Amino acid sequence: MPTKLWEKDYDLDQRIADFTIGRDREMDLELAPFDILGSLAHVRMLSEVGLIDAGAARRCQEKLKELYQSVQAGDFRIEDGVEDVHSQVELLLTRALGDDGKKIHSGRSRNDQVLVDLRLYFRHRIESIVGKTAELSQTLTGLSDEHRDKLIPGYTHLQIAMVSSFGLWFGAYGEALIDDLRMWRGVYDVVNQNPLGSAAGYGSSFPLNRDRTTELLGFRAPVVNVVAAQMGRGKTELLLAFAIASLAQTLGKMAMDVCLYSSQNFGFLQLPPELTTGSSIMPHKKNPDVFELLRGRCNLLQSLPTQVSQLTTNLPSGYHRDFQLLKEVVFPALDQLEDGLNIALYALPRTRVRAQELPTDPRYTYLYSVEAVNELVLQGLPFRDAYAQVGKDIEAGTFVPPTTLRHTHLGSLGNLGNERISAERQTVLRSFDFATVHAALGALIQ
Amino acid sequence: MPTKLWEKDYDLDQRIADFTIGRDREMDLELAPFDILGSLAHVRMLSEVGLIDAGAARRCQEKLKELYQSVQAGDFRIEDGVEDVHSQVELLLTRALGDDGKKIHSGRSRNDQVLVDLRLYFRHRIESIVGKTAELSQTLTGLSDEHRDKLIPGYTHLQIAMVSSFGLWFGAYGEALIDDLRMWRGVYDVVNQNPLGSAAGYGSSFPLNRDRTTELLGFRAPVVNVVAAQMGRGKTELLLAFAIASLAQTLGKMAMDVCLYSSQNFGFLQLPPELTTGSSIMPHKKNPDVFELLRGRCNLLQSLPTQVSQLTTNLPSGYHRDFQLLKEVVFPALDQLEDGLNIALYALPRTRVRAQELPTDPRYTYLYSVEAVNELVLQGLPFRDAYAQVGKDIEAGTFVPPTTLRHTHLGSLGNLGNERISAERQTVLRSFDFATVHAALGALIQ
Amino acid sequence: MPTKLWEKDYDLDQRIADFTIGRDREMDLELAPFDILGSLAHVRMLSEVGLIDAGAARRCQEKLKELYQSVQAGDFRIEDGVEDVHSQVELLLTRALGDDGKKIHSGRSRNDQVLVDLRLYFRHRIESIVGKTAELSQTLTGLSDEHRDKLIPGYTHLQIAMVSSFGLWFGAYGEALIDDLRMWRGVYDVVNQNPLGSAAGYGSSFPLNRDRTTELLGFRAPVVNVVAAQMGRGKTELLLAFAIASLAQTLGKMAMDVCLYSSQNFGFLQLPPELTTGSSIMPHKKNPDVFELLRGRCNLLQSLPTQVSQLTTNLPSGYHRDFQLLKEVVFPALDQLEDGLNIALYALPRTRVRAQELPTDPRYTYLYSVEAVNELVLQGLPFRDAYAQVGKDIEAGTFVPPTTLRHTHLGSLGNLGNERISAERQTVLRSFDFATVHAALGALIQ
Amino acid sequence: MPTKLWEKDYDLDQRIADFTIGRDREMDLELAPFDILGSLAHVRMLSEVGLIDAGAARRCQEKLKELYQSVQAGDFRIEDGVEDVHSQVELLLTRALGDDGKKIHSGRSRNDQVLVDLRLYFRHRIESIVGKTAELSQTLTGLSDEHRDKLIPGYTHLQIAMVSSFGLWFGAYGEALIDDLRMWRGVYDVVNQNPLGSAAGYGSSFPLNRDRTTELLGFRAPVVNVVAAQMGRGKTELLLAFAIASLAQTLGKMAMDVCLYSSQNFGFLQLPPELTTGSSIMPHKKNPDVFELLRGRCNLLQSLPTQVSQLTTNLPSGYHRDFQLLKEVVFPALDQLEDGLNIALYALPRTRVRAQELPTDPRYTYLYSVEAVNELVLQGLPFRDAYAQVGKDIEAGTFVPPTTLRHTHLGSLGNLGNERISAERQTVLRSFDFATVHAALGALIQ
Repeated sequence: MPTKLWEKDYDLDQRIADFTIGRDREMDLELAPFDILGSLAHVRMLSEVGLIDAGAARRCQEKLKELYQSVQAGDFRIEDGVEDVHSQVELLLTRALGDDGKKIHSGRSRNDQVLVDLRLYFRHRIESIVGKTAELSQTLTGLSDEHRDKLIPGYTHLQIAMVSSFGLWFGAYGEALIDDLRMWRGVYDVVNQNPLGSAAGYGSSFPLNRDRTTELLGFRAPVVNVVAAQMGRGKTELLLAFAIASLAQTLGKMAMDVCLYSSQNFGFLQLPPELTTGSSIMPHKKNPDVFELLRGRCNLLQSLPTQVSQLTTNLPSGYHRDFQLLKEVVFPALDQLEDGLNIALYALPRTRVRAQELPTDPRYTYLYSVEAVNELVLQGLPFRDAYAQVGKDIEAGTFVPPTTLRHTHLGSLGNLGNERISAERQTVLRSFDFATVHAALGALIQ
Repeated sequence: MPTKLWEKDYDLDQRIADFTIGRDREMDLELAPFDILGSLAHVRMLSEVGLIDAGAARRCQEKLKELYQSVQAGDFRIEDGVEDVHSQVELLLTRALGDDGKKIHSGRSRNDQVLVDLRLYFRHRIESIVGKTAELSQTLTGLSDEHRDKLIPGYTHLQIAMVSSFGLWFGAYGEALIDDLRMWRGVYDVVNQNPLGSAAGYGSSFPLNRDRTTELLGFRAPVVNVVAAQMGRGKTELLLAFAIASLAQTLGKMAMDVCLYSSQNFGFLQLPPELTTGSSIMPHKKNPDVFELLRGRCNLLQSLPTQVSQLTTNLPSGYHRDFQLLKEVVFPALDQLEDGLNIALYALPRTRVRAQELPTDPRYTYLYSVEAVNELVLQGLPFRDAYAQVGKDIEAGTFVPPTTLRHTHLGSLGNLGNERISAERQTVLRSFDFATVHAALGALIQ
Repeated sequence: MPTKLWEKDYDLDQRIADFTIGRDREMDLELAPFDILGSLAHVRMLSEVGLIDAGAARRCQEKLKELYQSVQAGDFRIEDGVEDVHSQVELLLTRALGDDGKKIHSGRSRNDQVLVDLRLYFRHRIESIVGKTAELSQTLTGLSDEHRDKLIPGYTHLQIAMVSSFGLWFGAYGEALIDDLRMWRGVYDVVNQNPLGSAAGYGSSFPLNRDRTTELLGFRAPVVNVVAAQMGRGKTELLLAFAIASLAQTLGKMAMDVCLYSSQNFGFLQLPPELTTGSSIMPHKKNPDVFELLRGRCNLLQSLPTQVSQLTTNLPSGYHRDFQLLKEVVFPALDQLEDGLNIALYALPRTRVRAQELPTDPRYTYLYSVEAVNELVLQGLPFRDAYAQVGKDIEAGTFVPPTTLRHTHLGSLGNLGNERISAERQTVLRSFDFATVHAALGALIQ
Repeated sequence: MPTKLWEKDYDLDQRIADFTIGRDREMDLELAPFDILGSLAHVRMLSEVGLIDAGAARRCQEKLKELYQSVQAGDFRIEDGVEDVHSQVELLLTRALGDDGKKIHSGRSRNDQVLVDLRLYFRHRIESIVGKTAELSQTLTGLSDEHRDKLIPGYTHLQIAMVSSFGLWFGAYGEALIDDLRMWRGVYDVVNQNPLGSAAGYGSSFPLNRDRTTELLGFRAPVVNVVAAQMGRGKTELLLAFAIASLAQTLGKMAMDVCLYSSQNFGFLQLPPELTTGSSIMPHKKNPDVFELLRGRCNLLQSLPTQVSQLTTNLPSGYHRDFQLLKEVVFPALDQLEDGLNIALYALPRTRVRAQELPTDPRYTYLYSVEAVNELVLQGLPFRDAYAQVGKDIEAGTFVPPTTLRHTHLGSLGNLGNERISAERQTVLRSFDFATVHAALGALIQ
């Protein structure tokens, strides 16, 4: 019974085997359901084009569906000595079906098998991340509505600048996440293409029907050119890394704000004790570790594009084993990003918001200087002259802040525009075609 | 006459001025036309909502259009001692119009002025890069058609693997560029939103009509939340960096292939002498420097996301002067990418293609081993058994390569699918709404 | 019995606990022996300055030495619910000794405990890596000597350039590794400083003797300023990342050469079958996966500085929980680098070297063009004129390569200078003071 | 008169010339004095080994010294149409000396000419940067002494933690810079090796005396192996990038602290008005742009290792034209780092320091909780019990901070250890052998 798809008469040196397999079997476990789905589509197409007889195809599909159930039940494992998930699936098939099981590799190479597994897997992960990102965006818009009247200083250069509010602050991150969704949307379109049929990157002399597997697996279209399909390895991961880094940038920045605003020197936010951790020597400490780790995790994720680039730069076209390491780089990153979304969804609504007494706190008086300038402008002074006059009042210590705020334009303190933001979120979310994918995979596996 | 928009009674230390301005005036020159367009829209809206009288608005617009013409004619410059492009435009306006010129800064800060300038500028650059990328993709598809029958070895692990062709090789890069266009498409949607009206990042107490400036400037929509608009600084550049790095990855990989294939040890490609450079000591050298530099440039561009991330990581929300340096990072990168596209468009069609004598070159005999396996499969053997038999023939030195190739499926040697690739390219290209933008800006400036 | 060093009256939310602890307990296991060593030195110093009575100090040391033995025997584990290695050690101590065990945390915070653990751990890892790097350098110099007369083409621009040899090629990497050792040397000097006594980063009101713990732990010197000691977190890891990336660059480049030279288009190197892996569809394939994965791993390791920078950029001075993630970044990287050294030490001497028939292979004729120029120069022609004449012969197809090679200067084909390289290696290696460290730790633990 | 060192009979396409030369001539101007020094040493050695007659050697040296003077006087330029600095120097020599000038290229290639120029140039820049870094370290230690008694809160997790001081804060950066000097020391040892004589990377058949040029140019030693000498390209720049990023990390972190501490929410530092900049709409603003730009610049410089890695990854051994771009990456970075050092040296001593009223400010009361714990410990309580008791007082609101501080150990508030830090700085500084270099170059040029 072979445990490698390329068994030869000589033994692979054990040290070489250990080094080359590395953490790959662990990573491959994630791919198991997708490997089976790919095989289901492949064998069905092989049968339709006459490369495998109907009976063998039926038996293969039955066994594959059974394996899929065992994966769902958590029973699937890669046996000791078996190199990867593809070998394990083929091994189980051959054990059960004998020669029929051996036929499934016709017109396929491990190369395009990995490619199709990865794209199915990434598509699946994207759906989940996109869903949670939209949920977090909605949560933030909700918090913006809830805290719309609580004022805080707005900063530029970390210097107090103008009046802001928790309505603006929460709402800004709610909207920023929609731009991240747009990035995921672009990457999704690239990921959602079918590489199956490219074999080792140079196609096959079998009369494969690549449009058929495309349809069966719910892909938007095939990657047409077989060399392009293989070149997608590394590139797909790079684009994913971009989308991950984009979202991580937003989450990380928000976490930095939370850490800063939780400092006693700001005091805008306060985590409830059960969300904080303490110090081994300072009995008073209640630290916002959860947001520090969210920040750190997200900042680390921003190095993902570099990791993928470094790994793939200057590799000529065609497969290289280096690509195996992409799994170790990208798979855990997807987990970490999703953990980050989960913890943000959990911790943000539990964080206490403390409005600031802006006009009466002497640190914050000058926040109102632009309001004073604008009042003079509305009284007829050119802007630059009004600016100069208020500047002189401030230097002379005679500045008195205005007592009212009249921010009415779209997106400002008094008119947050959250309903427009929510509408935009819905538009972007609906443009993903997750339902089509579900329908195709459901039909394949039922 | 002020040369800084924030002139005060004390002098800025000269060394501090030199250090803080740095290369910014040089960068700002690129923004001049877009700064004027932004001002045109702003002043028109100010007049419509009654914040500036009709006569002053008309005079401002006339002078701004005149300045726009002078920029187009190459006559615009930032005078010595003037800090940036925004100060220069306001200075020229005030020189010409006196108090009327001073009114234009109402309801606007340099912060949102920069933001709108940058988004207009990036939108403009994207259009050009997208156009050239599509052209290069088309060129490559054309070269694929032209050289469809010229065979070369296909490699995996840099080891000879299966038969490939120049049709596949050129065509693959033609298709890969379409995925890059999809990334640009996602980024374009983010860029093409209007930040004007966010002022210093906390909006204004003036009753600005932000939807109106959005329409006038041809933006798809406003960035609604004013804090989000300011947070777009850094993020917009990050997403641009992703799109740049994505395209650079494709170009760089292609250049690596060209350099490798030009080596005497491959000999698949040959640059004509006038595209090569020589050595100071080796009289025989004709080096493919142009593709080496394209490769190096593209690999460097792949570090762009890291540069932007490093510059912006852990900056809390709100403006920071650090953002100024983003211009130095991104502006030259856009130039370099466009130079790279231009040189690829120029050099690739001039590069000589040398088909290889695959079956008769002993180095390449085993390229046909899969064909031999497939023939046995078509004769009824299960794939794994056929694989084993051919493997034994090879070990025994009795392997004879098949004499014909029958690759018929979509995207393979014999069926490149270039027309489908071209159709896809057109679909993606049409989804950019450049015509809408042109119409809006044309109306604004005429 | 507390399982956190900062136990309070409220419970930490479980989801927050899971998120904040993450993979830290797994990482911490590596620190166990060093945590015990740090505690041994601390308790001994506490006793000497009178902060703990002699009996308690003796009991603590005995128990700590016992724990150290259990770590060495592989019996140490972090119990469920215990947060980290520091808590586990203190827990075991308190379990065994009661109040005496609680005294050990005087004048120490978890912050400086981690700092000292990490520096002891890194110092230990550096010693091992430096040893293996020197061994690999020596192996390469040995291979250079062995294959000194086997010629291969030398390339510039991947174009054939001048005659080279395996003596030069192996020897070059042997020498390059010495530069990497110099980098490790610089980093070692930074790592080998004692942060203990900095407590939470602001020192202690106890009269600690920091020079004493420095001596006991074999550190070169203390980090003097306690804020500087805490700032070393992140910086130490950054410098380590530099040394790792430096060595990885050399190994990765060598692996790239091996992969290229193993291609049928070069054929300079051949891996024995048992060091290669096969293909699932191409029976002829014997792929150099081991060197591809070494290359990929090393290229990934070159992204380490970015990972550390991204994680730490713009964190103000003082501890942040983000630093915890540094362990996940750096610890596995040290393992991977050491694995890479091991596999290179194993695979390189087993790789077959194939000298090329340079003068008779038509691809390689022009390698001798500089020799022809030099002969004319030695006959009296100015260099530039000789160059022009040989260039004309080549263009005209009348070039005849010289038949002899006379490279005699230091470091050239005929005079490799390997003995000087080996002497330099010894000098650098001896400049590390590992013996001093061993002596100190031996005295502490005996 | 040739303007390229490899002039052939065909013309290089102008677009290819423009693309390949790029910004290289601009970069090369920096190398002019070092190119001349390298030529002086080379020609003197050629004459000593008899490859050039004494008269010609003397005339070459005279002319080269004259050119060196013209460079020093600022009169040297690269003429239009001349490719690089090496061509320009040889052109001027040949113009002046005819055939004698042509002889200088014997036994040398442009490759090793660039290599030696770069190492001489880098060595020169390192000396300057090391000097300024030491000066800044000394300045910071001085500020630490000056402000030793001014207290500020110390933070962990950005939460108030324990009492700190400006003495600690300034002093920490003063000491941290010494670790950066150690990194420069390691890199300096690598840079300060002589690649001359490696020609195009494969040596020469001329009987060159490489030890002699090593001595003449003041290098510590030759890079022995000629292939290793060529491999130093890219690697040298990578190590430089590490040293640059290391120093930038320290400066950037300090700048982040300054920006944060200058915020009204901290108020620990205040820039004098002439060091601040203003806002275009907020008349009250005085922003610390100089430190924001120092921070941004330094953070960008931390991406330098990635830039170098991306550019060089997976380039096989031997020269590639990609290396040319290293100049554009590293040269401006050296300038920016030095500018950053200069501005820090200028601005830091001018920044106003504002001690905080720690015990009386309610935000800062708990800073003293560890002191309270320690007092109980000194009264005999085990640390963990004292910690618990103070924790209970804090929860109950009955905590009263101790009124005195007794930090006496090395490196703490009351015992900064600045004299030890200064001694260490001197030791590291003295270990650079700049005097030897000056002596050698002085002898060469006089």
